[in-house]
Amino acid sequence: MLSRNEVKYIQSLYHKKNRDKEGLFIAEGVKVIDELLSSDFKITKIFSLSDWKESHPYVTNVIEVDEASLNRISNFETPQKVLAIVEQKNTTQLPNLNTSITLILDGIQDPGNLGTIIRTADWFGIKNIIASPDTADVYNPKVVQSTMGSFTRVNMFYHDLETLLSFQKIKVIGAMLDGDNFSELQKHETCLLVIGNESKGIRPYIQAYIQQKITIPKIGNAESLNAAVATGIILWEMLSH
Amino acid sequence: MLSRNEVKYIQSLYHKKNRDKEGLFIAEGVKVIDELLSSDFKITKIFSLSDWKESHPYVTNVIEVDEASLNRISNFETPQKVLAIVEQKNTTQLPNLNTSITLILDGIQDPGNLGTIIRTADWFGIKNIIASPDTADVYNPKVVQSTMGSFTRVNMFYHDLETLLSFQKIKVIGAMLDGDNFSELQKHETCLLVIGNESKGIRPYIQAYIQQKITIPKIGNAESLNAAVATGIILWEMLSH
Repeated sequence: MLSRNEVKYIQSLYHKKNRDKEGLFIAEGVKVIDELLSSDFKITKIFSLSDWKESHPYVTNVIEVDEASLNRISNFETPQKVLAIVEQKNTTQLPNLNTSITLILDGIQDPGNLGTIIRTADWFGIKNIIASPDTADVYNPKVVQSTMGSFTRVNMFYHDLETLLSFQKIKVIGAMLDGDNFSELQKHETCLLVIGNESKGIRPYIQAYIQQKITIPKIGNAESLNAAVATGIILWEMLSH
Repeated sequence: MLSRNEVKYIQSLYHKKNRDKEGLFIAEGVKVIDELLSSDFKITKIFSLSDWKESHPYVTNVIEVDEASLNRISNFETPQKVLAIVEQKNTTQLPNLNTSITLILDGIQDPGNLGTIIRTADWFGIKNIIASPDTADVYNPKVVQSTMGSFTRVNMFYHDLETLLSFQKIKVIGAMLDGDNFSELQKHETCLLVIGNESKGIRPYIQAYIQQKITIPKIGNAESLNAAVATGIILWEMLSH
């Protein structure tokens, strides 16, 4: 049984303000906890059903709870077997941008979109994503869930994009609706690839730093592509062949 | 003002059973209603705020309502200016599969994923999608919303996939995790492209009909790609160059 205060404390971590104050976040589900256990994230506490605990005898800090207790602290409609409180990573120092492609996200607001972008980046071996401060929080439970564990391998930084872009010399490529066709794209180039907001695209003051605008060639009639789908197609095109 | 019965009737259409019984569905938002007005869908009734009505003087069957009434019949958290009741299309007769690529969806269950797949298909000019009966309903309000209007241009059919695949002679290509690399892919080929369920992939009895398995080459470590992202990359690779 969990005490009322414990339940309240865990539930409080579903709010960004409390997450950031405590420097913690919640991850849930067998797959993501397994990925966390084999990553460099620090797990503070794990709450699990007895069968998960029995199948992970080497894991410490596991508190066995019943299904009713787990449901009370869960954020899922269908309850999972295991939930963990995890330390957020300190990502104040920006990474080395001189290697391969770094994704730059300008105001991606839908948690599912952000999670899918992180998962897609992970598929293509992208190590770092730098996002504007108004991008969805990587530690939002919906983001954590939709990355399918990829947030443990892709580093996510939040930074003022104008400051970032004005102080570096790497080529900046932007995904826009009025850019060059893919045929202009140089393969395997070290660059910053900017993906804009779902409905408004890249903000004008960020567009000012873009040296090459690219557009995924359109054959049909949709007005635009989903941000995660566009990211996938562009990364594939940049990294293939 | 809407009567209590009217509100109740409209809200009932958010449930598939009632939608199918009435042969109707609900679409909401300025953009999607504009797309519907220029499509061959039949709109039964439109409920809108006064400014939308004034900016669409040529549209008939518009009932002006206030914001409070619109909020009561809306499915959105942020209310939209306009909502329509629309007739479902009769799609019992399957389309001609002998032209270009037809997408086959085997159990795509997340409405957002289905909507994004329809939008992606529309971007690449795919005209027809045939889905297993357990795929999400195209007239689910979340699907309608996430297609961003593309459901008005892409025809969606629901059909038993085994029956379909056992009675046709077009090449069947499947997106799998253990398939050939893209380099084996023939461009611009008339085919059926099968995309499987988000977590389980293509069901074994459907896999039996697949003549070519393809896999998007993986560079990093994610276990899989989101179904809509995978669809986008494969369609781009099949249709580019």
